[in-house]
Amino acid sequence: MGKTILYSFWISSCSWRVRLALNLKCIPYELKTLLLAQNGEQHSEEYRKINPMQQVPSLYIDENIVTESLNIMHYLEETRPQIPLLPNDKIERAKARQISEIIVSGIQPYQNLILLTKFPKENQADWASFWINRGFKAVEGILAGCSGKYSVGDKITIADCCLIPQIFHAKHRFNVNLEKYPNIQRIDEILQNHPAFLEAHPNNQPDKPIQINN
Amino acid sequence: MGKTILYSFWISSCSWRVRLALNLKCIPYELKTLLLAQNGEQHSEEYRKINPMQQVPSLYIDENIVTESLNIMHYLEETRPQIPLLPNDKIERAKARQISEIIVSGIQPYQNLILLTKFPKENQADWASFWINRGFKAVEGILAGCSGKYSVGDKITIADCCLIPQIFHAKHRFNVNLEKYPNIQRIDEILQNHPAFLEAHPNNQPDKPIQINN
Repeated sequence: MGKTILYSFWISSCSWRVRLALNLKCIPYELKTLLLAQNGEQHSEEYRKINPMQQVPSLYIDENIVTESLNIMHYLEETRPQIPLLPNDKIERAKARQISEIIVSGIQPYQNLILLTKFPKENQADWASFWINRGFKAVEGILAGCSGKYSVGDKITIADCCLIPQIFHAKHRFNVNLEKYPNIQRIDEILQNHPAFLEAHPNNQPDKPIQINN
Repeated sequence: MGKTILYSFWISSCSWRVRLALNLKCIPYELKTLLLAQNGEQHSEEYRKINPMQQVPSLYIDENIVTESLNIMHYLEETRPQIPLLPNDKIERAKARQISEIIVSGIQPYQNLILLTKFPKENQADWASFWINRGFKAVEGILAGCSGKYSVGDKITIADCCLIPQIFHAKHRFNVNLEKYPNIQRIDEILQNHPAFLEAHPNNQPDKPIQINN
């Protein structure tokens, strides 16, 4: 086994999903942090060869590059199934992927920084909140049917890896009121102190700027 | 085996992906079409119970509802693997999922009708073209490395099921110039006359309005 390198940005929810999957599966990795916002390091010619979308995360693993967060999680599941992040049951697997896909394609793209900067600053939070509430309303309904201790039953899945970073952005970037979402809040609280989740948290990333507090 | 029902809208690229997967896997299904735009049938209380995001597609199969297009394709792959839409090789599988995810979360959300209507009509095509070109530039680069006859090697995969509907929207809704993307154009041409692709095409859907020509 060669080394595994994660290209990551501390506050990026897509990077965070993969940090969680790697931690939960106990896969050791080296972190390469990119300075996105001010420095635009994701646009360098060198990094474009790694990630053609010029974004994080990218994972160097098994002497290949794998990109796109859900794809990376599936790759890890297929190559390192010892600690699974998908249930065995086919319907439960579909539930975990359904929740993940709602967040990955139905919420996160609409709070993307490139998109937000197209709006006046004073409208950005309202815009993002609209899409987060739309998605969370759906996710809350799904969780009412399939959650146990975690999003799908009593084992941590890729759904939790997608949900927790999205909750953080809802609360701390866009001030979304989560009172209407008791299952989402409950799962957030339960996972706050889980070692894999603590380690992956933006506040515990080496590239977190010193001056920002959350 | 009970019956399989696809909730679909003729021009929706997300519905189209699933129509392709069902056709390619030779899974018989009944089509239930929803009148989205004018009538907003996706917002009915009855349909919200089927799809909490109030969108198409939804698939009733094996006496369960499965939603979100990539999730549905994965479910079909897990339960009906006889005609596969993912390669055997783990790296090639990751390539097929990478291309799919770029389209599903990196392009399509930005041409979503709910989003587009937030912009003045005269700016909508420019806006959508920006995101399509950003994604297609990445996809073209990936295809240069992994495509054969189709997107990944010589067998049709979920990547083709995502790519073909996205090309149609690029060409016919937003007038995107595809000359810069020779691999994308080539795959589009090859699949134009494939029976499964012909059958799934918006022009061959029963809910296509009579007055619209493409």
